[in-house]
Amino acid sequence: MELNTVKYENGELYILDTTKLPSSLEYVKMNNVEDCFNAIRALKVRGAPAIGVAAAYALVLSSKVARKTSFQEFYEDFRKDKEYLAKSRPTAVNLFWALDRIDAKVIENKDRSISEICKLIEREADLIKQEDIMMCRKIGEHGLTLLKDGMGILTHCNAGVLATSKYGTAVAPIYLAKERGMNIKVFADETRPLLQGARLTAYELYHSGVDVTLICDNMAATVMKNKWVQAVFVGCDRVAANGDTANKIGTYNLAVLAKYHNIPFYVLGPTSTIDMNIPDGSAIPIEERDKKEIIFGFGCQTAPEDVNVYNPAFDVTPNELITGIVTEKGIIKPPFKENLKKLFNE
Amino acid sequence: MELNTVKYENGELYILDTTKLPSSLEYVKMNNVEDCFNAIRALKVRGAPAIGVAAAYALVLSSKVARKTSFQEFYEDFRKDKEYLAKSRPTAVNLFWALDRIDAKVIENKDRSISEICKLIEREADLIKQEDIMMCRKIGEHGLTLLKDGMGILTHCNAGVLATSKYGTAVAPIYLAKERGMNIKVFADETRPLLQGARLTAYELYHSGVDVTLICDNMAATVMKNKWVQAVFVGCDRVAANGDTANKIGTYNLAVLAKYHNIPFYVLGPTSTIDMNIPDGSAIPIEERDKKEIIFGFGCQTAPEDVNVYNPAFDVTPNELITGIVTEKGIIKPPFKENLKKLFNE
Repeated sequence: MELNTVKYENGELYILDTTKLPSSLEYVKMNNVEDCFNAIRALKVRGAPAIGVAAAYALVLSSKVARKTSFQEFYEDFRKDKEYLAKSRPTAVNLFWALDRIDAKVIENKDRSISEICKLIEREADLIKQEDIMMCRKIGEHGLTLLKDGMGILTHCNAGVLATSKYGTAVAPIYLAKERGMNIKVFADETRPLLQGARLTAYELYHSGVDVTLICDNMAATVMKNKWVQAVFVGCDRVAANGDTANKIGTYNLAVLAKYHNIPFYVLGPTSTIDMNIPDGSAIPIEERDKKEIIFGFGCQTAPEDVNVYNPAFDVTPNELITGIVTEKGIIKPPFKENLKKLFNE
Repeated sequence: MELNTVKYENGELYILDTTKLPSSLEYVKMNNVEDCFNAIRALKVRGAPAIGVAAAYALVLSSKVARKTSFQEFYEDFRKDKEYLAKSRPTAVNLFWALDRIDAKVIENKDRSISEICKLIEREADLIKQEDIMMCRKIGEHGLTLLKDGMGILTHCNAGVLATSKYGTAVAPIYLAKERGMNIKVFADETRPLLQGARLTAYELYHSGVDVTLICDNMAATVMKNKWVQAVFVGCDRVAANGDTANKIGTYNLAVLAKYHNIPFYVLGPTSTIDMNIPDGSAIPIEERDKKEIIFGFGCQTAPEDVNVYNPAFDVTPNELITGIVTEKGIIKPPFKENLKKLFNE
């Protein structure tokens, strides 16, 4: 069965509860907007693209119970739910983007009948999901040109199906290779402290029949030395105008190790994560998270409670360590400053 | 209170139960040889030097209950216990070495009275412990010459007090710096999968009042980029004749990262870990351990049970990445092949 983070079928909305992975695969029915709010807030659905899709369908549920007596009343109920949903995660850009897009569609069609507007909301949510799938597929197709049968790929964190609607970003080329019958061997960093690589990437690849081997983050150099991987594929949270890339903590480690072992290092993500307003990585703020994630990570205490802990959520990989940036529009190569500028001016 | 892995006071033997750390600091009284056997087997006492000392004192307990009617009968009981203890951990070289050393002392003095022999056994165990302390102290003194007030040091796994009788090896210079009132800031890799860095190194340094900050292994590159550390100090499990060094998995990662950031990388350990019979690191066998250490490491399942896992316990750092090897006899610098040969021919 194909994994589907946000599933809308016969008017019913289901969310794949990623917090239950890898122990159990559970789709939870969303009965109302409150359920959606809670699912997003509790990280049951996570990953910017998947959150956007979930929020869009939450508004479909909203439209069903909103008063249908007049557009005025309908829109009042709709707006209340939209504003409520916007508070579920404060920093997820795709969340606001998806909510605003549905809102604009409603306003644009306010002279139509409410039942027509409801259909348009549903259609817009479907479109948001379809566009996410197409974008991931395009990233996958460009990334696929880098793969050859029998190759080994190292990846970090989760930039896969479980963060998007299908395919993922960093992992998309591997799914497309699988569709074409190619044999790609993936090594997945477990990705401390929150273990998204173990809980999500190893899970989804294993579930899809991809040949995946889980390692601890500190084993990556040995895997490279053993010549088991011929490229590194990682996702990105923000790319600066010069190509410097912020991604999950540990990405920079991998980039340095790849350089030493002469292994190409690729960043994969949509062009929407490239921020041309930031000249370089030094301007990207790095969130530091609670020490408890490290000390009390998984049900038992692993270090003295009062010890100092440094827990950055992301790191910045300098452009000099990046072989190419794979987007839905193609693969950008160095010099990144010039080539990213060209991409956005085209 | 000073940590003491194996404590013999007023004829009573206590073991610091490291499996209870970091949650609680417990000294367990060893009432007999069986208690010692179980403490070694269950890893309550771990680290080659500490195991050797525990085994030596186990024979002190043995000598107390052995028949005193004749040397013949005394030695029969003693040998039985010695052979039993030798089965507690099959690969710990220091274990056999300590047992044989006490045995030789007994044989050498077989014409003396049994009560005299018992005193000599006790004295030999004390000597083994004192020599371990002195050796660690010497490693610490040589390592101390590399430190300056205010420096930051990154370390990996546990090569500290909790693996030895005092000071440790890689961590010894830091304790000596502390004794001299120097301010050294230590960053400790948590060291997946078994978290010895979090459970033991962060614990013992914090307990001793050293300024220690715990990080996940994949944060080391960022710590280096931030210029928070000016050297890396690691222990060693086996050093080849050319300086290639086998140590806890993740050490090689750190060495590559240190090279990229132009940070000196030092290996610290007794000359007894240098194996001149092994020409280079490729001849060092690397133990692979159970996947459960990674998948069920923290008291809950973190990845699909049946997924492939690669779990090497050690890695090999090539000599080209090592700045110096700090032993009780001094600091060996490159070219290691020549300089190690000289050291052993002196």
